[in-house]
Formats: sequence, structure tokens, C-alpha cells
Amino acid sequence: MRIDLNSDLGESFGPWPMGQDAALMDSISSANVACGFHAGDPGTMRATIALARDRGVAIGAHPGFQDLVGFGRREIKVSPAEVADLVLYQVSALAGMAAAQGMKLQHVKAHGALYNMACKDRGLADAIAAAVASLDRSLILFGLPNSELLRAGEAAGLPVAAEVFADRAYDPDGSLTSRSKPGSVIHDAGLVVTRAVRMVREQSVVAVDGSTIALQADTICLHGDTPGAADLARAVRKGLEEAGIQIACLSG
Amino acid sequence: MRIDLNSDLGESFGPWPMGQDAALMDSISSANVACGFHAGDPGTMRATIALARDRGVAIGAHPGFQDLVGFGRREIKVSPAEVADLVLYQVSALAGMAAAQGMKLQHVKAHGALYNMACKDRGLADAIAAAVASLDRSLILFGLPNSELLRAGEAAGLPVAAEVFADRAYDPDGSLTSRSKPGSVIHDAGLVVTRAVRMVREQSVVAVDGSTIALQADTICLHGDTPGAADLARAVRKGLEEAGIQIACLSG
Amino acid sequence: MRIDLNSDLGESFGPWPMGQDAALMDSISSANVACGFHAGDPGTMRATIALARDRGVAIGAHPGFQDLVGFGRREIKVSPAEVADLVLYQVSALAGMAAAQGMKLQHVKAHGALYNMACKDRGLADAIAAAVASLDRSLILFGLPNSELLRAGEAAGLPVAAEVFADRAYDPDGSLTSRSKPGSVIHDAGLVVTRAVRMVREQSVVAVDGSTIALQADTICLHGDTPGAADLARAVRKGLEEAGIQIACLSG
Amino acid sequence: MRIDLNSDLGESFGPWPMGQDAALMDSISSANVACGFHAGDPGTMRATIALARDRGVAIGAHPGFQDLVGFGRREIKVSPAEVADLVLYQVSALAGMAAAQGMKLQHVKAHGALYNMACKDRGLADAIAAAVASLDRSLILFGLPNSELLRAGEAAGLPVAAEVFADRAYDPDGSLTSRSKPGSVIHDAGLVVTRAVRMVREQSVVAVDGSTIALQADTICLHGDTPGAADLARAVRKGLEEAGIQIACLSG
Repeated sequence: MRIDLNSDLGESFGPWPMGQDAALMDSISSANVACGFHAGDPGTMRATIALARDRGVAIGAHPGFQDLVGFGRREIKVSPAEVADLVLYQVSALAGMAAAQGMKLQHVKAHGALYNMACKDRGLADAIAAAVASLDRSLILFGLPNSELLRAGEAAGLPVAAEVFADRAYDPDGSLTSRSKPGSVIHDAGLVVTRAVRMVREQSVVAVDGSTIALQADTICLHGDTPGAADLARAVRKGLEEAGIQIACLSG
Repeated sequence: MRIDLNSDLGESFGPWPMGQDAALMDSISSANVACGFHAGDPGTMRATIALARDRGVAIGAHPGFQDLVGFGRREIKVSPAEVADLVLYQVSALAGMAAAQGMKLQHVKAHGALYNMACKDRGLADAIAAAVASLDRSLILFGLPNSELLRAGEAAGLPVAAEVFADRAYDPDGSLTSRSKPGSVIHDAGLVVTRAVRMVREQSVVAVDGSTIALQADTICLHGDTPGAADLARAVRKGLEEAGIQIACLSG
Repeated sequence: MRIDLNSDLGESFGPWPMGQDAALMDSISSANVACGFHAGDPGTMRATIALARDRGVAIGAHPGFQDLVGFGRREIKVSPAEVADLVLYQVSALAGMAAAQGMKLQHVKAHGALYNMACKDRGLADAIAAAVASLDRSLILFGLPNSELLRAGEAAGLPVAAEVFADRAYDPDGSLTSRSKPGSVIHDAGLVVTRAVRMVREQSVVAVDGSTIALQADTICLHGDTPGAADLARAVRKGLEEAGIQIACLSG
Repeated sequence: MRIDLNSDLGESFGPWPMGQDAALMDSISSANVACGFHAGDPGTMRATIALARDRGVAIGAHPGFQDLVGFGRREIKVSPAEVADLVLYQVSALAGMAAAQGMKLQHVKAHGALYNMACKDRGLADAIAAAVASLDRSLILFGLPNSELLRAGEAAGLPVAAEVFADRAYDPDGSLTSRSKPGSVIHDAGLVVTRAVRMVREQSVVAVDGSTIALQADTICLHGDTPGAADLARAVRKGLEEAGIQIACLSG
């Protein structure tokens, strides 16, 4: 039994540091690297690739909207063609920078509002999948379980990975509980570990109403931008390993 | 006897068109495509690649400083490491977008102030050459004849191409006459053609003082952003062909 | 009987020109000047202010989303607080640059997607009105007739101006016919003039279904970015003047 | 006997925090607020103005080059006209945002590379002074003692303030010792306090060679972006007050 642990890294920009990349690298198996549109810059990308390579962590592209001030978290009404272009540009930029260090990208995970929009909108999802497939059909496309993004990836012939969140509450329909609701983010490390183990072992999660729902879980996302993120990541990894689950990247 | 004709294309940005790309594609053999930092955006890059592919024109990356307002024409005091990162990022972005359309990059030509600085500064030149070489050792590095940029390319094991300008006056030392001096830009199409033919046939040019100077000429740059640019490009191509010189890209 | 004619100007950016500002200045009485977020840069803003001053044209701020590539035409899901900040920043920048040339701003017209969103969303409209009022309560807020934007301006104690489009078709409910529908943009200069005169004289327009609808018309927008824009603007001005209608800015 | 203490604040950008603004506000009398080109965004500017107003700290504009990635610290070869435009734009933006909160700008301090270049280059210095004077002749222009920037300010009829650094070593000619040299930054709080007191009382400083040099000191800059910055600022303020020197902004 094995699982991939991913985290969003390389989100510093110019003089502004963000996150605890070095510390997180010890716990994760896959790093989603920002590509310069919502965060990250060429120097940060190079350094993040080097760090992942040194720690044996697989890397993927984390393309987002061109919106630094909004950190790519604000929905922008874009056409599928615009999305295809901005995804292909960013994934290509990271892929080349990775190749220059002898690394190959493992996956692509859309960032922020782009991810959320593409999980629900098949047109945008198809655009992302087509852009990724046009570059490299071995790239694994990340998306929420049962999302349009995963379906689009499969339709485009890409390998896909269903992403779950051990520290987020789920509604009975399998969607993430809105962050605006109390209890939507789980801070208790023990509970997060328990949920993570269950997600991997049983491919299910207990929703906010107490019901158990099935949930495909190929990779667990660990947040890197919160205080205590590195500690929580370590706890989740340790808990999974103690439960006999191997942490390994998807391309391993 | 043959020569490459190159031009800077894909310099539109968002809602702002620039240049006469479609018309120029008929005359040139190599297109230098802007990569989003000084001009160009993902959509423009995709369209420019498609246009070049349809017309049988080779493409190269045209990376510049991240300075849209200044169009990459203002010197920025950057470190070699910063230059290596921004060149690798931009070349990689274009290379991936080209690959998605079945095209392979032929060359890299630094843009504007970055080109001028790297032609004189070996540290910056080495950084560019190293960045290009780290991505693909078959990419041809463009530079002025006798420049640090060409020397850096050769030292890095890259194929290089010496670039000349048929519509620019030259000083006796082989450098381009400053644009601030009268007569620095030659507008007479017949004279431009005569100079182009001589550059290819004799690898020389008549300088502003009347002396003849040797000048390695592997590719001739045709400006695309001036009124009448497309007409001048056609005239140069026709003049060269009538002189028995074949127009062909460098990788052909 | 009098009317204001406005046009969006100062939309060049860095090396990229846009529009026919100098020609349009002869026909209009009010210029909406881009403020650097969706178009315009400090140099363009200075030059546009100088041009308006020399031609006796009133100026207003034309703040938009921070989206150069999308020209501020793509909806971005922003909070009212974000809108208030970006509007205040842009209006302030232009107001100071105008003051440096002895000019005072007459009005504020939100640009593109921001305008369209604020015309329908009272929260965003209130944010814009509050930002403008916090800077200068004499600034006239532009908006579509009957829009939330106009209502918010009135509620904030600002003078407002209802903006109509002589070259656009209207639906029976008084809204602009979608650009995606055939006939939504009227290209016949004679017809545009007739509609403009009727808008001013009768404060009404004939909708696409032939019905006549009431329409408050304080200022008519003339597009500046289409071929023939300057000619159409001249025709509209001439037609209005020949109908005995004076062209004058709102603050005159 | 009195002195102004200034610090660069409002240098956060979008999701990226920077500095310890709230803590520093207790120690300083004047805040230099970033204006969105090298750092700062409209929301950060609004919040920084509000913070300064609440703490009774005077504010000034801190305009810089449009270079977020380089934080405005990289020299860009700009013309005086370009500098005038970018300074006027940024100062105007902040001035309006301050007016909206009932605040008036006290001063203008160019940022980073722009400051350093203008201190040495009279053409750039004149451009900055003219831009500031065109907006408001009561704004105090900051510059290094004996710099072209101060001379340009005086020539333009602006009040000026000579800025000194208590935690930086000085060369015998009165210039700051290059940061690349050991000992250029003084970390010993006691020594910084001693130097600050001497700067105010005797308008002099002991240079790296032990000689005492005269140094006009109207305002002392306290760095805000280093670890321990807030503690050092508190120590300097306390030391100055214990020496009988009043801390007060320049416009007080």
C-alpha cells in the first residue's frame, strides 16, 4: 500500500519568501512548483528544482492565472484557448528548467482559481488536458476525485491522479467544505493523520454529517503556507508510515 | 552560396498588435520569437509558431529583459545568474510551445539591451551560453561578429551564427554606427540590397569612412517594426536571389 | 440643448500604440484616460493629459482591472475592498498627473469588465463610488442608465452621468444588445448620427424590436479603437451640431 | 534638539508580507511608503497609510523602478523624462490615497537603485525634483547629504532633508561604505545609538579610517527588513531621547 504526498512549493517571488520549502521536502514525495504567473520567478524555480532533485522529490508544474497580487486565487473569466496557452507556456518553462538540471516533470496540477474552475468546467478542463498532452503524454494530471479535470485528462489519454486533502472537511457529496464554514480546516494533527490513513487504506472519508463517502485518493495534498505546516507534514508522513503505508511519488 | 535572413517577430502583446509578421514570413528564413518578457504573450507565441510552421520558416527564441514598458531596450544591471535564469525560462517556454506544434527551436537570439550588453560583457555572455547549452546543445546562438556572445557560445560548445545588418552603417572597427548619428540607418532599398549581397559574397562591408572591413555574416537581420519593413525585406530577398545567393535557414 | 461626447483614450502602452487619440480629440468633449492597469503607462498618461489640455477637452480617469494581456476586459472575481483600492489608486495617479499640468479631473468611468460588473453589482458599485467620493466629491461618476453604478454614485453624493452608445443596438429592456448578436454594432454613420440626435433630443432610443424606450443620456460614448473611429466621431459631432445640439463637457 | 527617524514601510505585495511595519511605527516619525512599482499594492498602501495615521507617523512616497522581481534594486538605464513620469505617477497615487484618509504627504524619498542613481546623476535628480515640484512644492525631498538629489531639490524650490544611516559605515569622503566590504553594516546596537546621537548633536560621523567628517543629518533611516529591525529602532529612539533629542517628523 502506497500513497503520494504533494505540496505547493516554489511560491516565493523576487525579494519575498514564502513557505517552508526545505522543511517540507523531507516529508513529501511530489512538489508542485509555481511557474511565474501567480508566484515563483525564474530564480526561485531553478532553486526549487535543485532542492527537489537533491531530496529525491518528484516535481510537477503548478500553473496559475497571471495575477501576482491575487496569488492566482481570484477567478478570471478566460476562454479555453487562453487557458490552454497559459498552461502550455508555464508547464513548458518549468519543463525546460527541469531538463537543464537533469529532471523530468512528473505531473501538472493547476493552481488556485484555475484548478477550482477547471474541476467544474469541462471546457477549461479539456483545454488544460489538451495543452499538457500536446507537450508530453506521460505527464500525470492532478484533479479532485470525480472532477471534470480528471475526466478531461482521461479523455485526452493522460495518466491522472485524484487529489485529496487530509486536513479539510468534506461535504456528503464528496466536495470540499467551503473554507467560510467553521471546521472546514482541521488543525488537530492526530485527526489529520487518522483521516490520511483512512483515505489511503479505505479510499473513503467521513463527511461533516458523519456519513462515510468513497473517495479516490492517489495523492494527498499537504499545505505548505500555514504556520506549523512542516510539523503537520512530518506527522502525516510518520503516521502513514507507521500504518504500513509507503510514501512514494506517482512515477516511482 | 547561401544566407539566412532573420527578423524579430511575435512582438504583439495582448490587445496591442506590432509588426507585419505575416508579410515578413514570405521573405525570411528564420524568425526570432519574443517570449513574454519584453513582448509576446502565450497566445501570440502560439500563433507565431503556427505561422512560421505554415510558411516553412525556422524559429528561434528571442528572450529579453522583463520590461514591457521599456520593450526590453533599457539596460538593467543584472547578475550573470539572473540572466541565466531569465534566458532559460523564456527559451524553455518557447521550446515547449514549439514542440507542442511539432517544431524544434533552431536558435536563440537575445533581445535588445540584453543582446547589446551580452555582446560586450563576457560574464553575461557566458551566462546566456550556459543557459542555452543546459537546455539543448544543438541550439545556434546568435551574436554580433567578434562579440563576446559568439565567443561564449563557442566556448560552451554551441553552434553560433554571426549576425549582420544590411540597413545599418558600420564604424571602421566593425561595430554598428550609433543610431544617434545621421546616416546610421540606411533607407535606400537599392543600397541595402547591394550591401547585403556584398556581405554574403565577400564577408565584408564598407564602413562610414569608406574603408572596407571584414565581417563574418551568417545571418542578416531584417527589421520588422518599421514602415515599409515588409517591402524592404522582399527587396533584399529578391536582390540576394538574383545575385545567385540562396536564402535558407541555418539548420536546413 | 447640449450633450457630452466621451471616448476612451490614452490606451497605448510602452512601445505599443493604440487608437487615434489626436484625431478624436477634435470631436469629443471628454476623454477617459487609461491609468496604467489595463492600458496606459505614466508617459502615455502625461502625453494624453497634455493633448486634452491643448484641445480643451475635459479629462476623467478610466480605471480598470490589473490585466494588461486581457486589456481589462476579462471579469475578475474581486471583493468590493479590492475594487475600492484599485480604483482609488488609479484615479489618484491620474489626478496628480493632471494637477501637475494644471488640469482637474472631471469624471471617473470604470473600464471594461469592471464597468460592466459594477453596473450590475451594487456591492462593487458602492465600492467604486465610495473610493471616488473619498478622493473628491465633485468627480462625476459615469455609468449605464438605470445601473447600480449610477445609483451607487447618487447614494454616495456624487454627481453622475448616464452614458449611452449611439453605435450600439439596445434590447427592449434598455440594456445593450450582446456583441455576439448580429447587428449589435451599427456601422452606418448616418444611422449612428440619427440615433445620437434622438438620444439627446428625446432621451430615447429605438430598440432592436422596433419599440421606443426611454434612455437617460448625459454623455455619448464614441469608440476610438475601431477603423474609421475618427471619421465616425466627426460625423456624430457634425450631425449633433447641425441639429442645434451643443457639444460640451459636463463640467463646463 | 530634534531629529526625524524614517523607515521604508508598506513593502508587502499581494500575498507576500514583508517587514515589521506595526512594530516600527512605534519608533519612527516618518514612514516611506512603497507605491506599487517595486513593492506595495493598493491594498497594502491603504493599510500602511491607516497604520501611520493611527500612530501619528508622517508619511512620504517611496517611488521606485517598475521591477518587482528585482525589488527596484537593479539599476535601469532610464531617461530623465521616464523618471519624471514614473515618480509623478507613484507619488500622485499615494498622495490621493492618503488624502482619502485625511492625510497629506510630508516627503518623497526615491527607492533603491533610483535613489542611488539620482544621488549621483543631476539629470535624473532634476527630473525627480521637477516631478515632485509639479505636484506639490511643500513636499520635502530626501537625499544623501551633498548629493545631486538634494541640490536638485533646492534648485527646484523644494524643502530638502539630508538622510543619514546610523547603522552604516562611512568612507572618509562622506559616502556610504560599500555593502560588499566587511564592517559596512553595524550590528552593535550600542554603537548604532552612539553614532546616531553624534550625527544629530554634532552633525558628524567617524569614518572607517577614524577621521571625523561633517555630515548634514536631518533624518536618520532605520532599516525595517532585517531581523531585529524593530528592536534596533526602539534602541535608537530610546538612546536619542535619553540624550535629550526629540524625535519628530520634519513637518511637525
